[in-house]
Amino acid sequence: MSKGTIALLVNSNAQNWSPERWKARFGEVCPDRRVVLLPDPALDPAEVHYAAVWKPKPGDLAAFKNLRAIFNLGAGVDALMVDRSLPDVPLVRVAVGDLTDRMTEYVVLHVLMHHRQELYLRDSQRARRWEPKYQWVASAITVGVMGLGTLGAASADALRALGFRVVGWSRSEKQVEGVTCFHGSDGLDAFLRATNILVCLLPLTPDTRHVLNRDVFAKLDRSSPMGAPVIINAGRGGLQNEPDILRSLDDGTLGAASLDVFETEPLPEASPFWTHPKVVLTPHNAADTDADEISKYVARQIAQFEAGGALENVVDRGRGY
Amino acid sequence: MSKGTIALLVNSNAQNWSPERWKARFGEVCPDRRVVLLPDPALDPAEVHYAAVWKPKPGDLAAFKNLRAIFNLGAGVDALMVDRSLPDVPLVRVAVGDLTDRMTEYVVLHVLMHHRQELYLRDSQRARRWEPKYQWVASAITVGVMGLGTLGAASADALRALGFRVVGWSRSEKQVEGVTCFHGSDGLDAFLRATNILVCLLPLTPDTRHVLNRDVFAKLDRSSPMGAPVIINAGRGGLQNEPDILRSLDDGTLGAASLDVFETEPLPEASPFWTHPKVVLTPHNAADTDADEISKYVARQIAQFEAGGALENVVDRGRGY
Repeated sequence: MSKGTIALLVNSNAQNWSPERWKARFGEVCPDRRVVLLPDPALDPAEVHYAAVWKPKPGDLAAFKNLRAIFNLGAGVDALMVDRSLPDVPLVRVAVGDLTDRMTEYVVLHVLMHHRQELYLRDSQRARRWEPKYQWVASAITVGVMGLGTLGAASADALRALGFRVVGWSRSEKQVEGVTCFHGSDGLDAFLRATNILVCLLPLTPDTRHVLNRDVFAKLDRSSPMGAPVIINAGRGGLQNEPDILRSLDDGTLGAASLDVFETEPLPEASPFWTHPKVVLTPHNAADTDADEISKYVARQIAQFEAGGALENVVDRGRGY
Repeated sequence: MSKGTIALLVNSNAQNWSPERWKARFGEVCPDRRVVLLPDPALDPAEVHYAAVWKPKPGDLAAFKNLRAIFNLGAGVDALMVDRSLPDVPLVRVAVGDLTDRMTEYVVLHVLMHHRQELYLRDSQRARRWEPKYQWVASAITVGVMGLGTLGAASADALRALGFRVVGWSRSEKQVEGVTCFHGSDGLDAFLRATNILVCLLPLTPDTRHVLNRDVFAKLDRSSPMGAPVIINAGRGGLQNEPDILRSLDDGTLGAASLDVFETEPLPEASPFWTHPKVVLTPHNAADTDADEISKYVARQIAQFEAGGALENVVDRGRGY
């Protein structure tokens, strides 16, 4: 007998995020429940106890009156936070080691690419130019990590292990071993003035929208052997002021940028980011999480919840993450 | 009063390896010695007690009859091993943490580039194509490190910390924590059959010349999500059979290669490696070591030696490294 229905709603253009794939995974890990894909006109909304969603549109979940919890299938819940009709039940965000590990790889890769002058070296290869440049040590570079949650702390650890100096900034006070941590608006300037490579892993909230702007870039430290500072955004496109990034790259305020996210995704073909010589662009795939891992995580949380336990990683709707 | 003469001989086209720069550094760390640059027609060879060299030509050191030790300014001593007239005094190789750290950065960067499909992603950016592909986990990839000296062991550690499976191979038996180690010609096949990304950090000796050849490539494992295996050579150009690499890239035996070293350096402009779409080429700058660090290391060893202590990291001329 079915223990109730899980409704899945997946809006993604990523190759491995097909709704059918998610349905198959959830079917495997929740064999005693019915798993349906939304939209499903034949479905009685009252039967649905859990929703597992990625980027639903506002209103998509309003009809589910008997919902007990909503599981977000990725790390960022900003798409849900703008939905005023979202049922008032616990909203759980994904926090699986797999996603943290993927993000750490992305951050380490892109910090190393800029530290080791990959843009120059690829240009040199294309020009058949054998001109090694001085390569400074990792400890000559300070990486500033904005956002010291699970993702930021893991990236900071990995960067420290490779010899980089690491500073961090978060909204509220945090402590990460070996990392000089700043917090709040009072701590932002000191954090920026220490930073050569700025890594942004903040959640997108009304407070953080366009936090990556020209005023911020102008405060970054220019005294490292790299010269102009670099930004890496693996959070959300809404964190960045895109005209400010382009202007700052063009006038040398920034030396380069790695961008995994954009205000409009997929990035329109006409965007100047595609061809900008100082931009390393990836199609929002920094930390794609495996459907296997996430479906197991959701199944475990449901079992725990129905046995009377608490849900983990519940979003604070006031903070927005 | 001078405590004797140190002769410097530096053959390098790297920007930061100017002989004058080395002379200035040695002058700073050995203030009570005379430091001369070779060739110097006014120099009495009998006055020279120490030579610090990078890529001398055979015969360059033959005239120095009162030499007490030769310091090689980089990690590889292969240029010295072919010199039959080399004075029979201790030959010391550089082993400074700085060089190990630079090599670890290079290896981690290039393993991550291939693991995270950077060649595909850069192509996609150039083509304005927003098509994220499935990104497997690091633990789906086994990196095989050939050469388990200081450099290989440090790279293995850093890769393990990022979640990669790591196996190792060395001539004689070695143990590295968390790494399945193979050794000798008997262990080579099992090592290759486990490996998806082959990292070569071997010294160049008559035994290792052209160890990176088609027979070896054909034995690498093709069952990872990456498909075809990848090689990364940060050792010496003489370790690689270059026609074999090109043929193996072209017919799919290899999926990609990161090459920092070549049989002829600088790489001739006509080389097909420059423009090969599956090659990530760097101009022998994986582990450039800081003149400050090396000159301090040599000064410390000379002081220790003259106080009756032993020289460290002396090359075994029988083994060739």
